[in-house]
Amino acid sequence: MTMQSTPKSEDWFDLEADRLHEECGVFGVFGHPEAAALTALGLHALQHRGQEAAGIVSFDNQRFHAERRLGLVGDHFSDARVISRLPGRQSIGHNRYSTTGETILRNVQPLFAELDSGGFAVAHNGNLTNAQTLRKELVRAGAICQSTSDTEVILHLVAQSRRPRMIDRFVNALREIEGAYALVALTDGKLIGARDPLGIRPLILGELDGCHILTSETCALDIIGAKYVRDIDNGEVVVISEAGVQSLRPFPPQKMRPCIFEFVYFARPDSIVQGKSVYEVRKQMGVELARESLPEADVIVPVPDSGVPAAIGFSQASGIPFELGIIRNHYVGRTFIQPTQGVRELGVRMKHSANRSQIEGKRIVLVDDSLVRGTTSVKIVKMMRDAGAKEVHFRLACPPITHSDFYGIDTPEREKLLAATHTLEQMREFIGADSLAFLSVGGLYRAMGYEGRDDLRPQFTDHCFTGDYPTLLTDMIGETPRQLSLIAEAS
Amino acid sequence: MTMQSTPKSEDWFDLEADRLHEECGVFGVFGHPEAAALTALGLHALQHRGQEAAGIVSFDNQRFHAERRLGLVGDHFSDARVISRLPGRQSIGHNRYSTTGETILRNVQPLFAELDSGGFAVAHNGNLTNAQTLRKELVRAGAICQSTSDTEVILHLVAQSRRPRMIDRFVNALREIEGAYALVALTDGKLIGARDPLGIRPLILGELDGCHILTSETCALDIIGAKYVRDIDNGEVVVISEAGVQSLRPFPPQKMRPCIFEFVYFARPDSIVQGKSVYEVRKQMGVELARESLPEADVIVPVPDSGVPAAIGFSQASGIPFELGIIRNHYVGRTFIQPTQGVRELGVRMKHSANRSQIEGKRIVLVDDSLVRGTTSVKIVKMMRDAGAKEVHFRLACPPITHSDFYGIDTPEREKLLAATHTLEQMREFIGADSLAFLSVGGLYRAMGYEGRDDLRPQFTDHCFTGDYPTLLTDMIGETPRQLSLIAEAS
Amino acid sequence: MTMQSTPKSEDWFDLEADRLHEECGVFGVFGHPEAAALTALGLHALQHRGQEAAGIVSFDNQRFHAERRLGLVGDHFSDARVISRLPGRQSIGHNRYSTTGETILRNVQPLFAELDSGGFAVAHNGNLTNAQTLRKELVRAGAICQSTSDTEVILHLVAQSRRPRMIDRFVNALREIEGAYALVALTDGKLIGARDPLGIRPLILGELDGCHILTSETCALDIIGAKYVRDIDNGEVVVISEAGVQSLRPFPPQKMRPCIFEFVYFARPDSIVQGKSVYEVRKQMGVELARESLPEADVIVPVPDSGVPAAIGFSQASGIPFELGIIRNHYVGRTFIQPTQGVRELGVRMKHSANRSQIEGKRIVLVDDSLVRGTTSVKIVKMMRDAGAKEVHFRLACPPITHSDFYGIDTPEREKLLAATHTLEQMREFIGADSLAFLSVGGLYRAMGYEGRDDLRPQFTDHCFTGDYPTLLTDMIGETPRQLSLIAEAS
Amino acid sequence: MTMQSTPKSEDWFDLEADRLHEECGVFGVFGHPEAAALTALGLHALQHRGQEAAGIVSFDNQRFHAERRLGLVGDHFSDARVISRLPGRQSIGHNRYSTTGETILRNVQPLFAELDSGGFAVAHNGNLTNAQTLRKELVRAGAICQSTSDTEVILHLVAQSRRPRMIDRFVNALREIEGAYALVALTDGKLIGARDPLGIRPLILGELDGCHILTSETCALDIIGAKYVRDIDNGEVVVISEAGVQSLRPFPPQKMRPCIFEFVYFARPDSIVQGKSVYEVRKQMGVELARESLPEADVIVPVPDSGVPAAIGFSQASGIPFELGIIRNHYVGRTFIQPTQGVRELGVRMKHSANRSQIEGKRIVLVDDSLVRGTTSVKIVKMMRDAGAKEVHFRLACPPITHSDFYGIDTPEREKLLAATHTLEQMREFIGADSLAFLSVGGLYRAMGYEGRDDLRPQFTDHCFTGDYPTLLTDMIGETPRQLSLIAEAS
Repeated sequence: MTMQSTPKSEDWFDLEADRLHEECGVFGVFGHPEAAALTALGLHALQHRGQEAAGIVSFDNQRFHAERRLGLVGDHFSDARVISRLPGRQSIGHNRYSTTGETILRNVQPLFAELDSGGFAVAHNGNLTNAQTLRKELVRAGAICQSTSDTEVILHLVAQSRRPRMIDRFVNALREIEGAYALVALTDGKLIGARDPLGIRPLILGELDGCHILTSETCALDIIGAKYVRDIDNGEVVVISEAGVQSLRPFPPQKMRPCIFEFVYFARPDSIVQGKSVYEVRKQMGVELARESLPEADVIVPVPDSGVPAAIGFSQASGIPFELGIIRNHYVGRTFIQPTQGVRELGVRMKHSANRSQIEGKRIVLVDDSLVRGTTSVKIVKMMRDAGAKEVHFRLACPPITHSDFYGIDTPEREKLLAATHTLEQMREFIGADSLAFLSVGGLYRAMGYEGRDDLRPQFTDHCFTGDYPTLLTDMIGETPRQLSLIAEAS
Repeated sequence: MTMQSTPKSEDWFDLEADRLHEECGVFGVFGHPEAAALTALGLHALQHRGQEAAGIVSFDNQRFHAERRLGLVGDHFSDARVISRLPGRQSIGHNRYSTTGETILRNVQPLFAELDSGGFAVAHNGNLTNAQTLRKELVRAGAICQSTSDTEVILHLVAQSRRPRMIDRFVNALREIEGAYALVALTDGKLIGARDPLGIRPLILGELDGCHILTSETCALDIIGAKYVRDIDNGEVVVISEAGVQSLRPFPPQKMRPCIFEFVYFARPDSIVQGKSVYEVRKQMGVELARESLPEADVIVPVPDSGVPAAIGFSQASGIPFELGIIRNHYVGRTFIQPTQGVRELGVRMKHSANRSQIEGKRIVLVDDSLVRGTTSVKIVKMMRDAGAKEVHFRLACPPITHSDFYGIDTPEREKLLAATHTLEQMREFIGADSLAFLSVGGLYRAMGYEGRDDLRPQFTDHCFTGDYPTLLTDMIGETPRQLSLIAEAS
Repeated sequence: MTMQSTPKSEDWFDLEADRLHEECGVFGVFGHPEAAALTALGLHALQHRGQEAAGIVSFDNQRFHAERRLGLVGDHFSDARVISRLPGRQSIGHNRYSTTGETILRNVQPLFAELDSGGFAVAHNGNLTNAQTLRKELVRAGAICQSTSDTEVILHLVAQSRRPRMIDRFVNALREIEGAYALVALTDGKLIGARDPLGIRPLILGELDGCHILTSETCALDIIGAKYVRDIDNGEVVVISEAGVQSLRPFPPQKMRPCIFEFVYFARPDSIVQGKSVYEVRKQMGVELARESLPEADVIVPVPDSGVPAAIGFSQASGIPFELGIIRNHYVGRTFIQPTQGVRELGVRMKHSANRSQIEGKRIVLVDDSLVRGTTSVKIVKMMRDAGAKEVHFRLACPPITHSDFYGIDTPEREKLLAATHTLEQMREFIGADSLAFLSVGGLYRAMGYEGRDDLRPQFTDHCFTGDYPTLLTDMIGETPRQLSLIAEAS
Repeated sequence: MTMQSTPKSEDWFDLEADRLHEECGVFGVFGHPEAAALTALGLHALQHRGQEAAGIVSFDNQRFHAERRLGLVGDHFSDARVISRLPGRQSIGHNRYSTTGETILRNVQPLFAELDSGGFAVAHNGNLTNAQTLRKELVRAGAICQSTSDTEVILHLVAQSRRPRMIDRFVNALREIEGAYALVALTDGKLIGARDPLGIRPLILGELDGCHILTSETCALDIIGAKYVRDIDNGEVVVISEAGVQSLRPFPPQKMRPCIFEFVYFARPDSIVQGKSVYEVRKQMGVELARESLPEADVIVPVPDSGVPAAIGFSQASGIPFELGIIRNHYVGRTFIQPTQGVRELGVRMKHSANRSQIEGKRIVLVDDSLVRGTTSVKIVKMMRDAGAKEVHFRLACPPITHSDFYGIDTPEREKLLAATHTLEQMREFIGADSLAFLSVGGLYRAMGYEGRDDLRPQFTDHCFTGDYPTLLTDMIGETPRQLSLIAEAS
């Protein structure tokens, strides 16, 4: 019942400890004889979106079957015995980034309930901004909430709808929720997908051997050899059945506004998001960054691994050679159990080391994708100086992150965001670099192929850089806004 | 989601595979600084009532804390670290005998819900006979059932009650359920106990250092050095708070009718049930049995371990010496994983062996406590003959079991009960004994200290021997009656 | 490398914590298609002789195969996959009672070496009294000892013998060792058994479907349905091959002097040792004890489980009723991990409880098989008094243990043996009983069927009661004698 | 006992399945209060040299302590509890690449023996070419070999030497062995390092706070902040004690001939080997390769991860852009247990995926470090074609591997080396590339800074490319040469 957001014991070893984390990836298959195996593969390809747990629910035209596990997809769902317990031609799955502890298996999605109108399973990427408010109302009316996830609210709304058809119940439920969501749901004979009215979280339609696939990213289509069909529209609900794909549009039309962080950090570089190669966009961010703030330097060093595409772009635009100045140790071991103090202090060296031959006596440009609290940036700069760097110029391939997210990205509270509380010069001093620069908001939009940000009707959800939240934040009224699901868990 | 009642892989090794199984033991403490540690000890003493899983919920005046684990109490709850995660002076716990599989942790009690009126945790020994009917109504109204246990129905009834006070909601819920139950519940500042209107399942009040204790059996008082206060009455609800013990009686008065199987098999021999020593009663059953059907014989051999007290009584009444003719192997190992065929065929020998020196050339009387399907009795008689027994007389210290139970005892379906489908002579032939006799129903009541069964107002719930079910069986109308929770799990 | 004899964390819960422990059981099969499966069953039946680890080596006429595991036989060797890794018609196995830690798997027997003359595997029950001396000589000559077991000395002696035939090398090795041993060995095409010149440790020949079996006890024959053929003689070496059983007698003839503790405590009650039923002998010890020191009393209470046969004998001889005054909790859980202080203090109650109905207000006779340090006896007497016993008379079915063992029994150092340092009255006071009596040495021999001990040529190895060590104790010269293998492990 | 070289179940997922594998890394510390913790860190930095097991032996001036574990260093030796069991200021450690199964823990180094002259621990990187011959002689003389590693032969030679001083015994042993070795040994008060007469395997002396360190590579110095002192010379034995570092040269002087594969593949890119930056040398191999065989192309794609430095060099020399055309999935999960057939067939896609945006419609140059059996190269080329590559040019940054290694590199048998049995054109056809080219032997030496290979006195051990084995191969006389330790394990 009690739950703390446990500090990851590996944080001190990990350059990635200061990155943002998405909460989920979703995947669904309709009509394939190996539906669960395909779902496992899809979730494996989406593993970067959530590593804490995974689950699959299948339907064999009679019963629903569920397997949920803590850990990586490949640890459990590569096992033919597990897959054999998931028979049927329909299947949905979910990757979760989350907390630890006793109750976690309750929270692992897809969630399932045996409703009056039949079984209903749902998996959710995103975060609702009125879940806490809805939850209170539901509990007041006698509902019992078993999980602490905001997704359960959707399940209760579906359960309590008076409409006889499941799809109508589901649409009813969507009309009550606010925030960001890409949902896949499985009900008797139907696979349903839904994307929030602004299309904040991604959802894609694919096809394999005549069967339809729903997925968070195209990389999950590639792994199974499926074809990309189209992105689900913002505010669209697709109902996939033996009759084909039916499209519902239960919301008033709005301009799409997908989350720009999918490009900046979350999506896998080989994915195509909204028609754009993520790798290309990231390289282009490096190109724009070089245009905006190019120091005199001898070598471009990427912060592994997510800084690499921008660093390649920066190098190509500047002509300064790209070199692996930081080497990643590939064999870190799963768990650092109770390290001795001496080991702790060696910090990031356990996972990364300086490639002294490329650093010593040189003026280096470190290129990273983003800066959150700045804690690991400090360590990297120090590692470079220890290896003899003459100058260290830090470049970030996105603008300063000044606002928290409430749509499914695990950002720290605002006061812990370095850029929310420090000037550029203070940040430079904090991380110990000789110079520091961020990509401008305009540069970011140029890297995406626009002339700039359309401030009247912005093309993307970009509140982390701009403070411009695109939806109501019902749960936050009268209190310091926090990530909803965490509030729920603390209660 | 899918769940079969899996055959235990150890069945072929186990003399106890053909015994009946209770579904639960419950325990609660109010106001002790080591509430959770005491609860762990109490559950350990009640371990014979359920070995599959255990759970404890504590309340520290601010929050509820829960730990639930598959396996024995001593495997998990003897760990000080686990206990330290259960702070507070109020605590309830539960032992479960149950099924296997993914969902089991959902079913492990105590169940907990955050209701509009506050947190509510409940643990249940017994079985409701209208749970399925209530469940359907609740789901129709939009409730989501996460577990497959009938106990969740109680939780939903409490959640949906309109009464503001938690105790009134709880009593409301009790008025809707039928069947057998001993409940302990924990809510903000109160420990609640309740026993069904007939007192079918046991519940006892004890006291330690001025703190009140609720438990299924007195042996759980002994282990912590607590004093026995009194049995909770049939139909009584006790509310324990800082103000002391308040007793409610929400049902019309009825004569108590506790389950006679607590004496025959379930309760631990050192427990005192309804004021009677279980060991003494069992010995007395052996005495009555010897009076009723004493063969000429050389030696009395108990079927270990539950046949021992009756065999001692039989020996003392008959003057025929009591000898350990069957030796139990104490080091069996937790799991027999995939035994080879050869090992399987050796059956019960893995756990027990004949003590040939006491058997060979002798006329033996095997004394056991009960006979269900008869499958292990066949093996025991064969083991005795293989060891050279001249004659094998089988004596059962209870009457023939001819009817299934629906109140929390895991009986096979009626057609699998040997005595429901065979005559005495057919049974004797089936198990291969030279003679076979059961204690009569009258003898059973005499062993309990009565002149006999009061057929108009029977002193005990004894339908397994008589077919006389004491409550409504709402769920069974129009279908072959089965154990409710299993139906639920199969759905 | 470093190794301490770790105190068992469960000691405070366990009535059996103060019993003696044997170090091993051995088993061998020649010529059966399921040799390894039979060996696993045999080791399971011998599990009481050692619970810490088990191992099996098989030979498939080409290669030797080995599996060794920490834990119970049934935990690992009931698995068909493990057995399938042990092909061949010859097999030997070993149960070990031992220490913990990294190196233990090295010490788990059977030991194996690829010698110049072929593979050689050996398993040993007993302890050598000149192993340390031999070991020093071997190491001085350049031998490398990998394990800390005295058995490895035998392996090195075989390896360094100059004789070409393996059996001659083995006999050579036997002529160099002193102490107690029952050995089974496996070499190319032969199963070898050997018993020390006095026959201190037991070894038995059996037969199943024309195949020969070697085992420490007859109970391992019973489990697989094999027939008892004969006890191996003291000083006999049997060589079992396709040609049948060949018997060698490489030592000068001596009178046999088996260890009397096999009867008192180690052997399973259903075993036949030296032609005598262990159960019968133990009952007879109770009979003799009743003759020697019968108090006025109301009830005989056995200390479970090993005190039961003597208590039955005591009851039958005295006419005082036998009752289960102490109830054993069968579901203790494998491990008590870090119990809280409160739980620790409840001591033996976790595993046993008083059956108050048989104790309260009564004069009871507690019958136990032996008394070592007396620590648990104190707890039992207290448990009886807490349950209301009027008088507690403690009776031990063997004489006072005043001397340590050096032949494979894990006795504490002499100063920790209660009877070595206390008078009878002091012992009575220590354990808190109203009276205390031990069986006399003469009574012990009478229970075995003799008129008494033949002090000139004693029938049994009985130094623990008499100080009469029957072999040289080479390693103990000039130092306080200790168990050899422990000395080795400390080095 | 029986052991097969088990095919790794992950092979079909892994681009690295067709790489060569080193067998070991070694590390030693003298005189530091946290010797074992430093050793754990050093082994962690050397993890790329062996991932199957690791071990540490420490000496606290009285006793030796050992911990050996299967798995990664970080899985076990990051635990402060494990380190606390390794007290003392002297310590040596070892990483092992090896087989699986029961006996492996026996084989995990450092090996230890209690010899007549005191304790002796040794860890070995390399392989002896007369170990089997020596082993037979030792067994014939009565030695018992417990492990199957050739390192145990060294231990026996030390044990059987008649010289009183341990260092003399050790030098005696070195004079009997042939082949490649870098050894670290720990004996009473001394840390010893030794490198074979040609210096085939690397060994380096470092220093931290006045304490001496021995390590296979400099990256292990960097992780603990130690300074590089010098490479141990070929044929040198260093004895480190309180008196400082003493250098012995027990062999006639020879020109050093280190293994060229340390540069090509084994050493970590951030290590300095023989005074050269491994990263720089690898980049230079890419430069030379571009000079020798530059196709017309649009993009340079490295085969991750070991192909990256050469690809950067190739790109810089050719001016063709370097792009991440293959994306590595960082979250693979430790184990792929029993994948379904469908999953198997997806092969490398589980670990890597094509970055279509950089591949489609392009002429690509794939740069890899080496080609062994060619099995994964086939999959990569196919993956590129599936992603739409117009042309695929495969370039290898080392010459064709035509001969097996016997000095500690796990090469397949010669008939499985693609380049040993195929012409260049046949290889091109086999892997399906549009063109294929290898770096020439001359180019390889140029990349190392030489004008070319000195065929009379070659600068490096390079038999895998040239067939020029630099030592006797005693064990191979009269039989097909195979890796020694595998022969030993099969016996």
